[in-house]
Amino acid sequence: MTESVIELPQDEAAHLLRVLRLSPGDRIRVFNGRGDEWVATVDEASKRHVRARLDEPSTPASEARVAITLAVSVLKGDKMDAIVRDAVMMGVTALWPMLTERTEVTRAAIERSDRVARWQRIAVSSAKQCGRAVVPAVRTVAPLDDVIREAPCVMLVEPSAGVAASPLRDVPAMDGVTMLTGPEGGWTQEEVEKAVDSGARLLTLGPRTLRADAVPIVALTALRVHWEDD
Amino acid sequence: MTESVIELPQDEAAHLLRVLRLSPGDRIRVFNGRGDEWVATVDEASKRHVRARLDEPSTPASEARVAITLAVSVLKGDKMDAIVRDAVMMGVTALWPMLTERTEVTRAAIERSDRVARWQRIAVSSAKQCGRAVVPAVRTVAPLDDVIREAPCVMLVEPSAGVAASPLRDVPAMDGVTMLTGPEGGWTQEEVEKAVDSGARLLTLGPRTLRADAVPIVALTALRVHWEDD
Repeated sequence: MTESVIELPQDEAAHLLRVLRLSPGDRIRVFNGRGDEWVATVDEASKRHVRARLDEPSTPASEARVAITLAVSVLKGDKMDAIVRDAVMMGVTALWPMLTERTEVTRAAIERSDRVARWQRIAVSSAKQCGRAVVPAVRTVAPLDDVIREAPCVMLVEPSAGVAASPLRDVPAMDGVTMLTGPEGGWTQEEVEKAVDSGARLLTLGPRTLRADAVPIVALTALRVHWEDD
Repeated sequence: MTESVIELPQDEAAHLLRVLRLSPGDRIRVFNGRGDEWVATVDEASKRHVRARLDEPSTPASEARVAITLAVSVLKGDKMDAIVRDAVMMGVTALWPMLTERTEVTRAAIERSDRVARWQRIAVSSAKQCGRAVVPAVRTVAPLDDVIREAPCVMLVEPSAGVAASPLRDVPAMDGVTMLTGPEGGWTQEEVEKAVDSGARLLTLGPRTLRADAVPIVALTALRVHWEDD
C-alpha cells in the first residue's frame, strides 16, 4: 500500500482530541465503514481537525457469512437506541425501522426528531466498539407491507400468538434473510396472515414470552448459533 | 384439587388494586414461584388485602432442561437490573452476583443499598412477565474464588483476551452449569488461569467484542440453542 494521509470526520476528530486527548505521534485504528481497517498515526491535530497517516492494513472482526437485515417495529423512548447498538454487535448487515399496526411511534415523530440519523451514528459507534470495520446501513422507515416484499423473510412470533410457527431447528440454511420483529403489542392476526401469504416463515423461540425490545438480540444470537455463523 | 383461598402478598395486592384496578369476581393467574400456577378468582379486595379463590391449576411456560446458574460480575448503575430481568426471561435457575478483580462495585455498596433484595423483586416481576412459574433465587454475593469451586463452570472470555478458548460447538452436553460473565474491564490473566486450574472451560462467542452487559443474554441464548434446550 502506498502511504496516504486522511482527514478524520469532524465528530471523530473531536472525540479523539477532547475525550481520548491524543496528539501527533499517537497510534490509532481507523476504518472506512466498508470493511477496511488500518493502523494509523496521528499526524496533525488542531481544533476539530485531525489528519492521520495510514501505516498498514489491520484485520477487523470478520463479518458473518449470512447477511441479516433486521426489520424492527420502532419502539418507544430509547429502546431503539439499544436495539441498534446490539444488532450491530450481533453482526447485522442492515437495520430497517418498520411501522406496523401497533407501532406506537409515528413516521412524523421519527422524521421530526431525525432519528434515522441518530441510529446511524449509534451504528458507527457500536461498530467501533465491537471491532467491526463495516457499518450497517440504517434504511428509511417503511411500512410492514413494503418489508414483506423482500424474500426470504422470517417473522418472529410470541409463543402465545396461537399461530403455527416453526421452531428454530426447522429453519433451513440461507445466504441472507430479512428478520422481522414486532411492536410491544404484538402483530395483529391480519399482519401475520399477510406475511405468511407473502412467503414469510413464522419463527418462535421457545415457551417463554420475550419482551419486544429483547427479541432482536435473542433472535439474532439464535439464528447465528443455529447456522453456526459466528 | 380441593378449593382453597389464598391471600396475596401485600405488594402484589397493591399492584392488583391500584394499577390493574381489579375487583371481586375478576379472574387472575397466581403462582407460588416454585413451579405451580393456578387460574383464580378475586374473592375479597380491600385496601392492601386481596384474597383469591384458586379455581384450577394452569400450565406455566415449561422450565428449561439444563439448569444454568448465571454468576455475573456486578456491573455499575442499573445494568444489573436489566441483566437479572433478561436472565430470568432466558430461563436461568439462579443468579449469583460475583466480585472479581475489576468489579467496580464493592460488597459494602451492594449491602448498603440492599441490592440483592431489589434483584430478587426484579426476578419475581420478570418471571410474571415471561410466563414462568418458577422464580430463580438470587444468591448472596460471592468472590470469584468461591464461584469457581462449583463444577462444571463455563467462563465467557472476549475474543481479544488472547487465551485458548473453546468455540460453542465444542461445549459438551451438561445437566447443569455455572456460567461466569466478567466485569467491564474483563478478567485478569490470573483470574482466567485460576478458573482453568479449577476445571472451568473457557468459552468465546465469535469474533466480535460483546459489551459486558450484553454477554449474559447472548451467552444464555447461545447455550440454549446449542443444547436445543428451549
